[in-house]
Amino acid sequence: MQTALYMISSWTLHPQLAADTVAVGDLALSRVLLAKDANYPWLILVPRRAGVSELIDLAENEQVRLTAEIAAAAQALKETVPCDKLNIAALGNMVPQLHVHVIARTKNDAAWPKPVWGAVPPRAYDAGAMEGLLEKMRARLKLAAVGPQAL
Amino acid sequence: MQTALYMISSWTLHPQLAADTVAVGDLALSRVLLAKDANYPWLILVPRRAGVSELIDLAENEQVRLTAEIAAAAQALKETVPCDKLNIAALGNMVPQLHVHVIARTKNDAAWPKPVWGAVPPRAYDAGAMEGLLEKMRARLKLAAVGPQAL
Repeated sequence: MQTALYMISSWTLHPQLAADTVAVGDLALSRVLLAKDANYPWLILVPRRAGVSELIDLAENEQVRLTAEIAAAAQALKETVPCDKLNIAALGNMVPQLHVHVIARTKNDAAWPKPVWGAVPPRAYDAGAMEGLLEKMRARLKLAAVGPQAL
Repeated sequence: MQTALYMISSWTLHPQLAADTVAVGDLALSRVLLAKDANYPWLILVPRRAGVSELIDLAENEQVRLTAEIAAAAQALKETVPCDKLNIAALGNMVPQLHVHVIARTKNDAAWPKPVWGAVPPRAYDAGAMEGLLEKMRARLKLAAVGPQAL
């Protein structure tokens, strides 16, 4: 029974999010991911809480924590990459695990001024460009890389 | 000079948001609006702070307040209308004034599972249906209607 309870309460990253991103690192509440789409610098924050689909499924103090982490991610992007506007969104129509998009938009990006979802196919990062952005985000957010065992 | 300073710091609702919505009422920080689109029960929260475009333009305590108001709006929708998923988003690519969409989505709505923006043209509410939803939202959020002078 102990094992079963542990399994129910244990958080794991949704496989679709794992497939579409690389891990930047873990903040106090959220795993920070970088989308594999060079069209836009695009972070995704996933609170490490099992069974949570909506912002309002989180406890109030966790909602506050998540907001602080969203703001930190937004600030890190704004200080690091070209950014005319930040887009912040928790949709979850396709992937029910609560995840928050934090995207740096520019007026000449592939989808502007439309939302990014479904606008154009993802574009692969050049070798080195993704690693460079990961390093900058880790430095700004004071994060260590997430080991494979934590994925 | 006093007049000029006052004007710079005075908040007014962006005309595009005013055109696309009706006012539900004012929470401590945000004006709550209802989109004139019967395709989805769709609230928009606009912090009454002049010159603010991004979440991270708000002071930290205002970010916390906005999160609480988003959660209250989301809860009010979830308890009032059919809702398979809440969509919460601050985009602002078209209207730079900070505003947060809080939308109740269902699996048989006009855009599911796509995001709502640009998916289908807005659909007018039937007479009475909008007023009924406004009244329910005001009751849940303990809001008085916003007078025309405050628009």
